[in-house]
Parts: sequence; C-alpha cells; structure tokens
Amino acid sequence: MSERHGPRYDAVFANVNLATMVEGFGEVRDGAIAVHHGRIAWLGPRREAPRAAVIHDCDGAWLTPGLVDCHTHIVHAGNRSDEWEARLEGASYEDIARNGGGIMSTVRATRAASVVDLLRESAPRVSQLLAEGVTTLEIKSGYGLNLQGEANLLRAARRIGELLPVKVRTTFLGAHALPPEFIDRPDDYIAEVTERMLPLLVKENLVDAVDAFCERIGFSYDQTERVFAAARKLGLPVKLHAEQLSDQRGAELVARYRGLSADHLEHVTPAGVAAMAAAGTVAVLLPGAWYFLRETQAPPIAALREAGVPLAVASDCNPGTSPLSSLLLAMNMACTLWRLTPREALQGATVNAARALGLQDQIGTLEVGKRADFALWDIKRPAELAYAIGFNPCQAVVNGGVMRARDVELPAGF
Amino acid sequence: MSERHGPRYDAVFANVNLATMVEGFGEVRDGAIAVHHGRIAWLGPRREAPRAAVIHDCDGAWLTPGLVDCHTHIVHAGNRSDEWEARLEGASYEDIARNGGGIMSTVRATRAASVVDLLRESAPRVSQLLAEGVTTLEIKSGYGLNLQGEANLLRAARRIGELLPVKVRTTFLGAHALPPEFIDRPDDYIAEVTERMLPLLVKENLVDAVDAFCERIGFSYDQTERVFAAARKLGLPVKLHAEQLSDQRGAELVARYRGLSADHLEHVTPAGVAAMAAAGTVAVLLPGAWYFLRETQAPPIAALREAGVPLAVASDCNPGTSPLSSLLLAMNMACTLWRLTPREALQGATVNAARALGLQDQIGTLEVGKRADFALWDIKRPAELAYAIGFNPCQAVVNGGVMRARDVELPAGF
Ligand SMILES: [Zn+2]
Ligand SMILES: [Zn+2]
Repeated sequence: MSERHGPRYDAVFANVNLATMVEGFGEVRDGAIAVHHGRIAWLGPRREAPRAAVIHDCDGAWLTPGLVDCHTHIVHAGNRSDEWEARLEGASYEDIARNGGGIMSTVRATRAASVVDLLRESAPRVSQLLAEGVTTLEIKSGYGLNLQGEANLLRAARRIGELLPVKVRTTFLGAHALPPEFIDRPDDYIAEVTERMLPLLVKENLVDAVDAFCERIGFSYDQTERVFAAARKLGLPVKLHAEQLSDQRGAELVARYRGLSADHLEHVTPAGVAAMAAAGTVAVLLPGAWYFLRETQAPPIAALREAGVPLAVASDCNPGTSPLSSLLLAMNMACTLWRLTPREALQGATVNAARALGLQDQIGTLEVGKRADFALWDIKRPAELAYAIGFNPCQAVVNGGVMRARDVELPAGF
Repeated sequence: MSERHGPRYDAVFANVNLATMVEGFGEVRDGAIAVHHGRIAWLGPRREAPRAAVIHDCDGAWLTPGLVDCHTHIVHAGNRSDEWEARLEGASYEDIARNGGGIMSTVRATRAASVVDLLRESAPRVSQLLAEGVTTLEIKSGYGLNLQGEANLLRAARRIGELLPVKVRTTFLGAHALPPEFIDRPDDYIAEVTERMLPLLVKENLVDAVDAFCERIGFSYDQTERVFAAARKLGLPVKLHAEQLSDQRGAELVARYRGLSADHLEHVTPAGVAAMAAAGTVAVLLPGAWYFLRETQAPPIAALREAGVPLAVASDCNPGTSPLSSLLLAMNMACTLWRLTPREALQGATVNAARALGLQDQIGTLEVGKRADFALWDIKRPAELAYAIGFNPCQAVVNGGVMRARDVELPAGF
C-alpha cells in the first residue's frame, strides 16, 4: 500500500481496534483506517496502513461507526418535570389534565417559541448525545401541530445540522396528536396535515421522512394510511409509532408501504413481525419510554430476532414519556430490560439505526466509500459501551474525517 | 449587612435560587450565599447580600448542597462486562462460575493492582460523579479480602480525596464475601477481619466506618454482629448491606448498634423498619442494583416514609450488580421505579446522605457554619435533576468555597 507520489489519504487513524459492524461485528484488532475527502478510503491491519498527510495514534482505543440516534423528539420547548413531580406527589391524570398538562403543554410552549428559542432549549440535549459519539440524529416534529409550529420546529432541526457537528434527518410527525383547534375533527386535521402542511414543508425542504402515531390515543389505521399515501405521492419514505400501547396493525401497515421502520412495538403481533421481515422494515426499540412509563409488556425481541427483523435502539428523547438524552443508556436499557446482547445493542445504534433512516449506503458501518463518521472509545471490550450505566467512555469523535473533542462547544448565540 | 472595614466574606454567590434542604426543601428564590474560610457564613435574599472580596453572579441558576454519594464500591480493578455479555448471550451462572466469573474475578483483579493502578482505573468513574456536583463520596473496600488488598483499596480511596476535589469517607467492608483462602471457614475469616485486618487498617487511619454483607450468600447475623462488636470496640460507626435478597434481621441488628445506615432493604420487615426509626438509622436506597439485577420486590418506601426513617439514595457503583456512576440517574431510578418524589430524591442525595455518613453537622444542607460545598445547576425547577435521564445540568461546583468547572482535570499520573 505504499505510495510513490505522496500520500493518497488525508488522514490515518492507527493503533485502533475496529468494530466495523459489517456482517455482525467485523472486528479488526490492532487496525488502522484511512480517510480521504470525508470518506473511508481504506481499512485493515495496522502493519499494512498506508501513508497519509496526518497520522492519529489512537493508543489502542476502540473505533466504531459514529452512533446514530434514529428516533428523537429532541427539539421542543419546556419540559414536563412539573407534571411528573405532581404525579409522584399524588396528583391524578385528571388533576394534571385539568392543570393543562400532558402533550398539549409542550405544544403550547413549542408554538410560543421562536426558532432561536428552540435551538437554545434543544442544544444542551443535543450536545449530550454528541458527547457520546452520535454523528447522525433523527429529529421529529409533532409539537407544533400547525403549519407555523411544525415549520419552526423543523427549521430548528435543520439549523442544528448546520451549526453542530452532526448530520440531521428530519421527520414530519404532524399526525402526532390532535391539536385543540381540531377537537372532535381528526379527519379534518389529517386533511390539514396531508393537503396543506406536508406539501408546504416539503417545498421548504424540511422533510426527509414522514411518521405518525397510530394508537387509540393517536390516529387510526385509516387516518395513518392517508398520511402514508400523501407521503408516497411526494416520494417520501415513511415510518410509524406502532403498537406501543395496543395492537393497531400498524406494523403491517407500515410494512405494506415498505416503511423504513416501525417503532416501539411492545404490542406487535406475529403477523406484524412477519410483515416487517418481508418488507425489510427495521424495528426501532425505545426502552426509555418503557422504563419511564413503567410498562410491563416488552416487545417480542426473540420473535423479531428469529424473523430476521433488524433491531435498532434509540433514545426517543421527548419531554413526556422518555426525557432521555443518552443513547448509551438506551443501549443499556435494551440489554438490561429486554435482553438484547451488547453486540445487538451496538448494531442497533449503528448499522441498523442507519437503515432505519434509509442511510445504510452512507453510514452505520466502517466500509470503504462510507462517510468517515467515527466514535473513539476508551474501553477494553465493546460490550462496555452498553454495560456501564451513566458513564461515557467516548474520547473523541470524527465527523466526515475531521476529529473533534468529545464535548462540543456551542456556537455563540446558543 | 453593610461593612465599615472591608468585606467580612471571601465570596458571595448571588443571583441564585437556593434549595437549602433545611426542614424539607427550604427554598430561597433570588437569593445569595456568602462563604468565609471554606464555610457558609451567610445566606438570604439577594437584596440583603453582604459585600465580599469576590462576587459570583450565578445568572439565576439553582444552587444546592454539593451532592453526597453515600454508598459506592467505586475503587476496583477491571469490570465484569465479559460475564454480563456472556449471560446475555445465553451462558448460565454455572458457566460463568466455571470460567472464574463473579465477585472473585474482581477480587483477583483488585489484588493484582497497585494503588496507582486502582487510582487510574477508578478516576474516570469518580470524575463522572464529580461532574454531577458530587462533593462527598463514600468508598467501601471489600474487593481485597485480605490485609494487603483491603489496605491498597483504602489507600487508593484516601488518595482520591487528596488528589481530586471531593471529600472521601472510607468504609471497611472486609466482610463482603468469603475469600478462597477461607473456603468453608467463614468464622475463621471473620476472626481475621475483626482481630487482624480491622485493627491494622484503623491504625493506618484508613477506616471511617465499618460495613458487612449480611445475606445467605454473604455473612450470617452472628458473624455480622462480631464485625459490629469489633467496630464498637474501636469507636467506629457501623452500617450494613441489609435485606437485599432476603430478610436476615440485618436492619434490626444495625439499628441495635445505632448504625448510621441500613442499605438496600428490599426485604426489610415492619420490625426492621420500626427498629431503624427508633435508632435514627438512615435507609440507603440503591435502585441501580435493583434495576441491573431485574429484581421485582421493591423496598417498602411507604412504610419507611411513614415511620419517619430518613431516605438516602446512592449509586452503589460496583462492577457486578450496579455498574452505575451517575447519582442523578440513581435519583431518577428512585423516583421512576420506586415512586420517591423528586424532593425526596434530592434530600436523599444531600441531607439524608450526609446523615448516612455521620456528617450531618458538616454537610448536606445550606446552613451557616457548614462546609461551603455546592452544586450549581442550569435548571428552572429542582425536580429537573431527577426528571432528566442521562442528562447533566450541572454548570459548576464549589468545594469549600472554591468554584471549579464541572469537568475535573485529572492530575498528571492518572
Ligand atoms: Zn417517539
Ligand atoms: Zn453495596
């Protein structure tokens, strides 16, 4: 691999153990990885490493693909610690609803916030994820529930991708909850979502995918299908909050639309699992919400695994049901609570999470041609990533071939 | 409060909301707190704040007593991610025991480590706690299980208190598990613990309190009492790992010795609760282990609360049953899993944790004369500390009146 005419690579990260995540785990001990023009250009054993303009000696660290948090509602205003505290002090759900709590309190706060407000409130949460080696982040709308509110939220999401070292994928979740303006008129709201909001948001290039909350307390199967049909007309991929609290046949529906992912899945049926397997739809597991809500029915991990459904793990970062801004902790919860193996958890936060975003050709594994997004870890064994609880062994992050410190400085104005 | 002859205070922290933790919560909005010679010298409303050599404008932050993690096994070598992974991949406990797993693998690694090795391995975990505003830390021995091993572990604990901005309290837990040298001879090991190890460790000033693991898989009631009697002879306070997996009447025993705390308590009986209440023994709740081991029987929180037993919350940081190095997360788990209120969780990590260490006269509340150990938080409501999961809103820490950045630089040599 030597060169006659000077280095062909921008940088080499040497003296690393690679977890390539190719075909399982793809471990390369005492390896090296070379980058060029922001992409992976070579990887292999260290002794065969090519020359490069810059050599980073990584001192025996583990290097994985940058982590991918593929399901978040991280952009929102305010938090719901007040109603959580009230519940723990004995208030009933009715008391809280009477005091204006629940998702609508987040909607009110988010509607009242400017794009800059939303950026300022969300940046500390995003920074927390970035310090854990997250290099790609999905952000859903769904707290605006009107054109202006959804647009501002998605603009803030796009700005995060411009201002911070992270690739952002936006998902339009207008069909998250019924806004007060449409009380008792859910079908009218779905018309607003599909005929007005979605096309205008797409025109502004704010939407990479479309999602809905298919649930008794959300939208019906038929309403969800109308959202999917609108997405298909615009050439957008779909995903779904499916079977979190009850079976709505959402997994079958999203599979029928060859959706990227079905998320939650605590109550998915064998038919739903089979449909997902046939369609290649990823199961996005969200143990943070299950933990925070103290649910008891776990998703059928063994059945999903047996059917060959790819398992992803995400934070579901949101103020009402999963105020979690640690993907490493979501990985631990997936193992501790639902018995994923540590390897499955790492696949779930890399290769399978990339697939849940439709980005499997770009990120999620260490392969030549993919984006040079890496996380470097001060660990002896990759299982430590999921094992340690509330501990972050990330020592540096590489975004598009450029190394940065683990903690991200927020730009002025944040 | 004006002064004629120059400032009487070293520093004032102004523009803060104080959670003094005196008589419940003791909130002072828009307050200030003055320090002198490392102690709290004045606190009250901002408009009455005295002059001082240095004024810190805290920009509306919340200021609490520095957090106290009152139950940890944070000094140890190695980790047990390997056996955890093996379990999740299907190995039985027998497989793991056959491969030398379990607590004895940590004992072997810890015995083989030098004091400097132990410091190096433990410092990142300690740093994680310090970044969360922890200013006092209890560290137990119990992975040496012989004189040399226990001494080295406790020396490393003392060194942490010298090298890092944290007050360390050491607890001798020689009666943690039966070392292989004493197999089938637990009474002989207790004699070694009480007649040789404890006196020699005390002579080296390595022991602030004495603990034991009273359990079927640990030591019996009678063996535990022999440890307590030896502690009493040396004038040392006692505490106990009590009723974690079964009722052993440990809570009654430790209360009879007017112990500082009984810890775990999942299986404590009404008699145990009553004994603790009468003796003023603190209940140290350890939800990390309960979470990690997927236990189902919770400690009787309501009964403890009703009896007036002070509730503390701690990380139990240890490699086998609670690889948790976040006290904020332990607070969240105590609320989420066991329904403590966020205020109880904060009391549990401040005033009641101080009491569990016998330090209630020195730390744990904001009161004139107490040590000026504070944590400053970028939050709107104190409940956010327990509400957010895997998020650290600590913005600065004050140790003995001296402000430091949240992230601690490890000294050279670590
Ligand atoms: Zn969600
Ligand atoms: Zn313990």
